[in-house]
This record gives sequence, structure tokens and C-alpha cells, in this order.
Amino acid sequence: MTAYRAEIFITLKPSVLDPAGTAITKGLQQQQYPGVQEVRIGKYIELTLTAADASTAHAQVEQMCQEVLTNPVIETYRFTLEAGR
Amino acid sequence: MTAYRAEIFITLKPSVLDPAGTAITKGLQQQQYPGVQEVRIGKYIELTLTAADASTAHAQVEQMCQEVLTNPVIETYRFTLEAGR
Repeated sequence: MTAYRAEIFITLKPSVLDPAGTAITKGLQQQQYPGVQEVRIGKYIELTLTAADASTAHAQVEQMCQEVLTNPVIETYRFTLEAGR
Repeated sequence: MTAYRAEIFITLKPSVLDPAGTAITKGLQQQQYPGVQEVRIGKYIELTLTAADASTAHAQVEQMCQEVLTNPVIETYRFTLEAGR
């Protein structure tokens, strides 16, 4: 078995409102960052796993993203996968 | 002024416990992913801003990370910055 490390980026779909992002945008603008246009908040997940080979690891991470880690109604995801811890 | 887009990755310091990550790790292991070793949950922020030039934009994003977007006691951050929306 080989160790793999996935970096998963989960973001709200563009059509979905992001109240937290909007609040931070306004806060930054009012503080001292008038140049800020938009802030979108998402999740960044670091996941390590062992698998027989890269394609098995890739398939498992894909399935975890779809079935456990994201809400497909409002979120999209992408991930990178590399061998080694 | 030029438009810039920053991708900010905020993670808990390695020494900081991650209860959410631990819970997800156990959940995945018990479901059908025994190969999962560890899951660490962080924040992924997409931020667009206008600035006079790249170094100004970089300095502003650095400052926002340190003063607003992260808790320096328990979190670390890194970011990428590119011109254009």
C-alpha cells in the first residue's frame, strides 16, 4: 500500500449566496481595504490515505468528496493528489 | 488600478487539535474508507481586490491575513496572488 496526500478545495456554487463572505467583504472595505471587491469562503481539507495505487486513491477521494465531504446541492469541489505523506 | 485575485489557505497549526477533522477521519474509516489516515479541516478563501500594483496587492493580502482573516495563535496561512479577476 502507498501513502497519498489529497488537498481538497470546497467552494459554494457561484449562484449560492455567501453571507459570511459578504460580511467579511464589508468589514475589510470599511476598515482600511477599500480595494477589496469580493470574498468567498470555502473549505480546505488535507486528507492522507493509503491505497493500492494512484487510481484507487483518486477514485476513493472522488467518492469521499461526492458522498461525505460536500453538499452537492450548494457546493463544488476540486482536489489534488500526490504520493507520499 | 489593476484587479488581483488571491487564493488564501488557512490551516490549524500542527500542534492544535482538530476535533472536526478527527470526527470526519473516524466517520470515513468506519464507513468504507479504512485507508484514511488523517483529515485536517481548514479555510479556503477567494478574495478579489484592486490595487496600484502587484506588490501593493501582496502587502494588503498579507496584512488582511494577519490582522483579519486568521487567528495567529492557532492558525497559519499561505496565499497565491494573480492579476486579473
